[in-house]
Parts: sequence; C-alpha cells; structure tokens
Amino acid sequence: MSATPPLTSARRPTLRTATSAEIFTRIITHGPVSRVEVGRLTGLSPAKVTKTVGPLIRDGFVTEGEHAESSSPGRPVYPLSVVPRSMLAIGIKVNVDEIVAVAASIGNEVLTSTRRTLARHDPETVVREIVRCVRRLVAKLGDGADRLVGIGVSVSGDIDSASGVVRHSPLLGWANVPLGATVAREVDLPVVVENDVRALARSEQWFGLGVEAESFAVVTIGAGIGCGIYVNGDVVVGAHGVVGEIGHLPLAPPDAECVCGRRGCVEAVASSGAIRDAVRAGHDDPALTLADAVALAHSGDRAAVDAFDRAGTAIGAALAVTANLVDPEVVVIAGEGVMEYDLYERRIREKFTAHAFGAAASCRLVVRRHTFIDWACGAAVAAFREALRPVV
Amino acid sequence: MSATPPLTSARRPTLRTATSAEIFTRIITHGPVSRVEVGRLTGLSPAKVTKTVGPLIRDGFVTEGEHAESSSPGRPVYPLSVVPRSMLAIGIKVNVDEIVAVAASIGNEVLTSTRRTLARHDPETVVREIVRCVRRLVAKLGDGADRLVGIGVSVSGDIDSASGVVRHSPLLGWANVPLGATVAREVDLPVVVENDVRALARSEQWFGLGVEAESFAVVTIGAGIGCGIYVNGDVVVGAHGVVGEIGHLPLAPPDAECVCGRRGCVEAVASSGAIRDAVRAGHDDPALTLADAVALAHSGDRAAVDAFDRAGTAIGAALAVTANLVDPEVVVIAGEGVMEYDLYERRIREKFTAHAFGAAASCRLVVRRHTFIDWACGAAVAAFREALRPVV
Repeated sequence: MSATPPLTSARRPTLRTATSAEIFTRIITHGPVSRVEVGRLTGLSPAKVTKTVGPLIRDGFVTEGEHAESSSPGRPVYPLSVVPRSMLAIGIKVNVDEIVAVAASIGNEVLTSTRRTLARHDPETVVREIVRCVRRLVAKLGDGADRLVGIGVSVSGDIDSASGVVRHSPLLGWANVPLGATVAREVDLPVVVENDVRALARSEQWFGLGVEAESFAVVTIGAGIGCGIYVNGDVVVGAHGVVGEIGHLPLAPPDAECVCGRRGCVEAVASSGAIRDAVRAGHDDPALTLADAVALAHSGDRAAVDAFDRAGTAIGAALAVTANLVDPEVVVIAGEGVMEYDLYERRIREKFTAHAFGAAASCRLVVRRHTFIDWACGAAVAAFREALRPVV
Repeated sequence: MSATPPLTSARRPTLRTATSAEIFTRIITHGPVSRVEVGRLTGLSPAKVTKTVGPLIRDGFVTEGEHAESSSPGRPVYPLSVVPRSMLAIGIKVNVDEIVAVAASIGNEVLTSTRRTLARHDPETVVREIVRCVRRLVAKLGDGADRLVGIGVSVSGDIDSASGVVRHSPLLGWANVPLGATVAREVDLPVVVENDVRALARSEQWFGLGVEAESFAVVTIGAGIGCGIYVNGDVVVGAHGVVGEIGHLPLAPPDAECVCGRRGCVEAVASSGAIRDAVRAGHDDPALTLADAVALAHSGDRAAVDAFDRAGTAIGAALAVTANLVDPEVVVIAGEGVMEYDLYERRIREKFTAHAFGAAASCRLVVRRHTFIDWACGAAVAAFREALRPVV
C-alpha cells in the first residue's frame, strides 16, 4: 500500500484499564450522557467518572455539551458525548459474490463506502479485493485517513478473532485461512477479523438494541442461518468458535441432508440454497434461481410455497429454542432472507408460538432489513473495539 | 420465630460500588490470591485493590496470608483470603417430597444441615417446613447464628427473584406464590428466592467450574430437565423468567405429549416421570415406580431400555443444541437422573456427536453427582450474593 500515507500512528485514546474502557464505551453508546448517568451504568462513582473522562476531553475524543436540565435543581449538568470524527475505522463484509466496505466514524456515521464484485472467492482474490477497497476508501477520506484506527473484516463461519484466522467458513469453502495477517501485510493498519453475525450483533450492542435492552439475539436468515447473542453486558464469543450456530440445530425433518454433512439441520431446509434446491427439484429445473423461487412462491406455486413453509417452520423452531434457552429481551430477525419475510412469516409465528415456553411467548420478535452497509458497519465496530482495548 | 435471637443486625461488609463487590467476590472465589492477581482478574490497578481491601481486612472479612513466593523476586506477596466463618447463610432446596437445608459459610463449608419430608407440597405446608428448618439450623448454630446474613430458597420453575415470587412451578403446581415475603414474615433475616438450577449454577460459578472456566452450562436431568448458563462473567438470568428451559425444546418425537401441554418437548420423553410412564405402559402396570423402571432397564428389559434410550436421545440433542448455540467451555450434566447415567449415556453421546457442530464436538461433557446438599449450598450462594450487593 505504498501509494497511501503510513497510518500506523493513528491517534487513539490511551485507556489503561477495563474501567476507563468501560466509561468511554458508555459515552460512545449512550451519549450525550451525564457523569452521574455514566456512574449509574458502570457502578462507578461520579468522581471516578470525572477523573477518567478528563484526558479524553483534553485529547479531543469526548466533548462536554451545553448545560442541560438536571433532575436535581441548581446542579449544572454538562452531558458528555464522543467527538464523532475523532476516530474512524474501515469495516468490510465479505460475501461469496461481493465485498462491501465502509469508512465509519466512532459516532456511527458512514463517511464513504465502496463495493467490489467477486468473480471468485478464493483467499487470494478476496485479500486482493479487500486491499483495493481499503485503498479506495483511504483515498476518498483524504486527510481524514489520519484518524483511521483499524480495519475490521467480517466473514461467515468459525473465526478465531485473536489470531485473525478463518478456521472454517463453509460458505466460502475456506479452512484455516490467516486472513488478518495476510491483509495486515498490505495495509499499515491493525486488522481484526470477526464472525459476520457477531459483528452485526456488536453493532446492535453499541448503536442499536443494546443501548436499551439488557439482552438480545440477532438471528440472520439467508445463505446461512446464524445467531449473535448479547447477554450479561457483552456479545457471547463462545469457547470453541461455534457460538450461535443456529443453522445446525437438529430442528428440521431428520432425513433432510445439510451441506455440512449432518442430517436434520435447520439450514438443510431453511437456507436460501436449500429453498432454491427444493423448488428446483419440484420443477425439475436445475437452472432455477432463488429469485425464480421467490417469484414462484409469490404467485402461489405449490412447490415454492411448500419450500418456504418448511423453511419458516424450522426457523420458527430455532427462534423458540433461542427464547427458551437464552431468554433474551428481544430477538431480531435479520439477514438478506428478510427481504422475503412475508413468505416465511406465517410458519415462523406458528412454530414459535407452539414451542415458546410460558413467558417466552412474550419475547419480542423484530424484523430488521439491514443492508450489507449495516453489516460492514458491524465490522467497523469490531475494529473500534480492538482499538479501545485497555492496556492493562 | 420469637424463640430465636433477632438476626437483622447481622454483620456484613459495606460494599459501596460494583468495583468493591467485584474485588471481594474474586477474593471469595479465587483466594488465597495476590492483589496483583485480583487486579488482573478485575482489570483494576493493584493500588485500587489495596485501597478497597483495607476495610474488609479491618472488619475481619478478609485476611492476609503468610508471605508467599512471588514471581518477581524480592517483592513480598501476602495473599488474600476470605475469613470463612465471617459470614454464614442458610440455603434451602425445595423438592416435591422433601426440603433440604444447610447452614453454609462464605468459605463454602457446610456447618450443619437438616431435612424435612413433605407429605404435601402446597405453599402453606412448604413455608411451615422451611421455617422449621431455619429454626433448627439457627438453634444448632448457637452463637454462630449472629453471623447469618440471609436465607436463600431454591425452587424449580419460573422465579421472579427481585420480588421473591414463584411465578410458575409446574412440578410443585404453584402459580404466583409470594414465597419470599411469606417466609420473611416468620424469620428475621432477608430471604431471597431463586430458580434451583440457576442457584446450582451460581454455586458452580463461585466454588466450582466458574473459578477456572470462562463459560459453562449445567444441564440437570431428573424430575425436570433444566439448564443454567454462565457466560460473560455471570449466570444468565433471562428477560422473561424462562432461561434454560431446555426441557421444553422441541427435540423429542413431535407426537410426544408433555405435561406442559405442548408436544415434542424433551421432558415429554426424558423426565423421570415420562420414563416411568413409558415403562408402566410397556408393562401395563400403573403402579410401577421409577425405581422399578431403573431395575428393569438394568436387567435388560426391552420396554425399560427403550424408554431410557429415547430419553438419552432427546437429552443428547438438547446438549448439542446448548453447545451449538451457546458454545460453553464445559457442559456439566447433573441432577438426580445422573445416578443412573449408565442407562442414558450411550444415546446421549451418539446424539450429541451426531449434531455437535464442528469444534462444538470438543466441548467437555462432565457428569457431576451433586447431592441435594449441593443444591441447598447453591441457594446459600444466592443469599450471599444478595447480602453482598453494592449500595450504589
């Protein structure tokens, strides 16, 4: 990346302890917010908050707002906010056929974005296209590129974030690809690799549902079926890299063959590939596309409607399992599959209602039509989190 | 409880903030432990640890050990430990046919215990017997009773710990029973009510697996089938009181009728009642007991072996779901059903292996033969936690 200026000196706040990182994160996610409220959220004294915030204000990462109304009259309140463009990160979502990249601010603005179509998705091609995206975004940012603190890359599958290795991505057909290190050799910025659904959940944690909800799950439907879980103050990372593998719960008919080699997995009937294949088989047309299957289902075609019904039933069971086992406040249904949510909805609700246990039936199900720009923003959040990791 | 001395003045440390509570808890769970190690575990500076620990040492809750070897030569290390009997709590496990109660120390010793057989399990009877247990334990403790900080009661079902209400306990047949308030009227101690599996998980969190493991699940098999999940530093409490309802995941044959009214629940084939009923039906003997079913299975009786096989298959699927969705480091299989674990084991392993996704197959499955004394200790941990809640 010789054409771009060196970026290793990117300014970021020095957060020495978990406490200072937590305080800064609360200002990012809850600002504008008073010191008293930050203390309440973190369990720390307002004095400790004030002391910790001092250097962040001095260095231009946090700003004090105008005097706001206080609940205790007479005491002035100067709410704290993050300075949105004091830190930037690049977020990249890798799909099978496309890369979507954004430059985002710590204030959750997308400053600029770019895309590259992938003719192939072998690791070499993907790395080359990621680097192209980074260069293009850096060029577009101009002087602002000095404020980049890192790059987040999100990929579906079993990701070892600590080492930046894609251990296994069935959709990409990758095993043990050292993606983080390979990209980092080409760019002068720290690179963090994260599971795509987990990255999306982290984005919800910082800027979406996590601001208010104590817990939530994000269930994504589409080419793969995944789940990110936020509980006890953080997204669940898992001990073996398989957390949220909701697509491989044995909730489909036991004879349904999954691409993973097992039988009865949710994805065996509910991934967009499985739906397309079922409609292909029903019409004896091996060239039929997913778009064709959607159009057929909308026109009432029996084979297509049945395929989406089977998918909705399996997804509904997976949602009930998530509610009964983890009991989140809200379940967000997301992923590219929700563009045709009308085709799944009835069976999802039927099956969820049949198996949600007791009060789990009152778990809110919310449909979110995220774009791939939103997914890429999740990858940027992963980069910000890495940059804000405390020293101690 | 006029015969016993007033206990409301029970001494407990004043923990003003979440930070001080966290430091004290780490000393309880990890002691003897150096200040540096407490700092590492909590993300706080050793100076902050020293400052916080001072009053706890002064007031007799924490003690400094002898000079231990340090990794940096020349710097003396005086490891911190909790003073085991500086605080006591009563823990009570309510079963359908029995109450088991312990007086336990903050150092995880059982000082004394008692049991009461229940002829009936209506709320009035259970409260009366709980109060009898408390009085007996207080009498046995003598002067030590001054150190009691509270009572924890653990009950299966949907429990609202904040209000002490048993919202729904299918096993006891209770709905909206204000158990905590009713017991508290009879005893001069704070009373906390907790779901029994969650209390057992809290006990593992403090004194068992949680000391080393980053995450774990406790799956209990027996009269009911439940699950406690520890992740991101705490046991998952759930938003609607149904967390860990693994017994009601739709993983059994879809026609199996569950006592909850749904079909296909794990408990419909895998609870001890369901197993007994299946063997009763196979032998056309409505008086057959669970002990008979176990003996028949051990003798190779077809109907009995089939019943345990069906149970093991459903439990194995539930374990795979837990591993694929939450991905804990370890899954503990516990509950009274593990006394006959040999009868389930083969099918549990078969089904778990068939559906554990990728690296989830390497999730450790550990069988623990907890006694009801252990469950009661979990209820005591719930009481300690409540007593150590920070003021701020």
